[in-house]
Amino acid sequence: MAGDELILLNYWISMFGARVRIALEEKGLNYEYREENLQNKSPLLLQMNPVHKKIPVLIHNGKPICESNIIVQYIDEFWNDKTPLLPSDPYEKAQARFWADYIDKKLYDSGRKITWNKNKEEAEEGKKEVLEIFKVLEGALGDKPYFGGENFGYVDISLIGFHMWFYAYETIANFSIEAECPKLMAWDKRCLERKTVAKSLGDPKAVYDIVLKSRKIKGLD
Amino acid sequence: MAGDELILLNYWISMFGARVRIALEEKGLNYEYREENLQNKSPLLLQMNPVHKKIPVLIHNGKPICESNIIVQYIDEFWNDKTPLLPSDPYEKAQARFWADYIDKKLYDSGRKITWNKNKEEAEEGKKEVLEIFKVLEGALGDKPYFGGENFGYVDISLIGFHMWFYAYETIANFSIEAECPKLMAWDKRCLERKTVAKSLGDPKAVYDIVLKSRKIKGLD
Repeated sequence: MAGDELILLNYWISMFGARVRIALEEKGLNYEYREENLQNKSPLLLQMNPVHKKIPVLIHNGKPICESNIIVQYIDEFWNDKTPLLPSDPYEKAQARFWADYIDKKLYDSGRKITWNKNKEEAEEGKKEVLEIFKVLEGALGDKPYFGGENFGYVDISLIGFHMWFYAYETIANFSIEAECPKLMAWDKRCLERKTVAKSLGDPKAVYDIVLKSRKIKGLD
Repeated sequence: MAGDELILLNYWISMFGARVRIALEEKGLNYEYREENLQNKSPLLLQMNPVHKKIPVLIHNGKPICESNIIVQYIDEFWNDKTPLLPSDPYEKAQARFWADYIDKKLYDSGRKITWNKNKEEAEEGKKEVLEIFKVLEGALGDKPYFGGENFGYVDISLIGFHMWFYAYETIANFSIEAECPKLMAWDKRCLERKTVAKSLGDPKAVYDIVLKSRKIKGLD
């Protein structure tokens, strides 16, 4: 809608924040991007998300929406006249929500076992879990170009933000996602060819550098 | 729709399964209820939910829908001609999803610290967390009769299934929810006056008995 004010509170390495950025780009919406310092959160972030105090938060005409998958659904429902992100069929919609929920419940925690591992065993466990999750997702993708079928959509948006972290996962736990899950990596490349995705994701090597620095600060290396 | 076949795979003490039962009742839908033995899951459950292998699963004309909040949204979207469960306004819908998500992310795990505690300290920690969650929810409820306002809906359905477990929480951790959160307990009573809720929830004292027996089997007492 003309005159809508959109502000995104985010931190660039967030796979969750990336979802919101991609959804806004897919809808062709202009928004103000505000980078948060998570060590010193802004009064606005604490005011807009007092329950979780987390990024990303989308502020639409002064009203906050929190939790990335909920924000993406909001964007799809409010600007429902262009580029649908979720399927319209209730069953397909439930399936899309199932896979986005699966990604949220599984991948973040298993990935953290790699990046913030206390020892080699934990990193190995994380690697094993991440690969299991990727195999399940590769099965769900099947031979379709996108999780939603012919069109890039909600599940793709839920997963592709993690691309920023793949290099860190692979380098720290010493494995190749492509060698294990070639179809998923072909999907990954396909998504990155979209301008909406490419411009919303930070550099995976810069994410890795931040992980290495943070590991030193946390005394993990 | 006439001729729809609905089968619910469930285990009666599940706060998540209760959500689906209530949603089906609110929509006035007939369904076949099948009780699962979680120690020996049926081939149908494993076939219908191969990813999580968990109840509840709603099978609609042979097709499975998994994860309770996703099932409730599916029911609301498929049978959208009667008793809306989610608000129609996108912002209100996002708020409803936020609180249902909050309940899922917080209450189950904190409640488990009480029911399956290894010692008094863990039970105390669980009690503290559960009360904090209840206070936040009581704040979100405010002076409205239901979380959705005048009408019983999605967030109410997400939370009221936990009613079955309140007696176990209170008895094991020795506290009174009503003393701490009188408005939330007034909401609880209001919900229980609905036939759709009352007929979908098992007896809290029977849940407590099962917890006690299970604690003995697990060697916790």
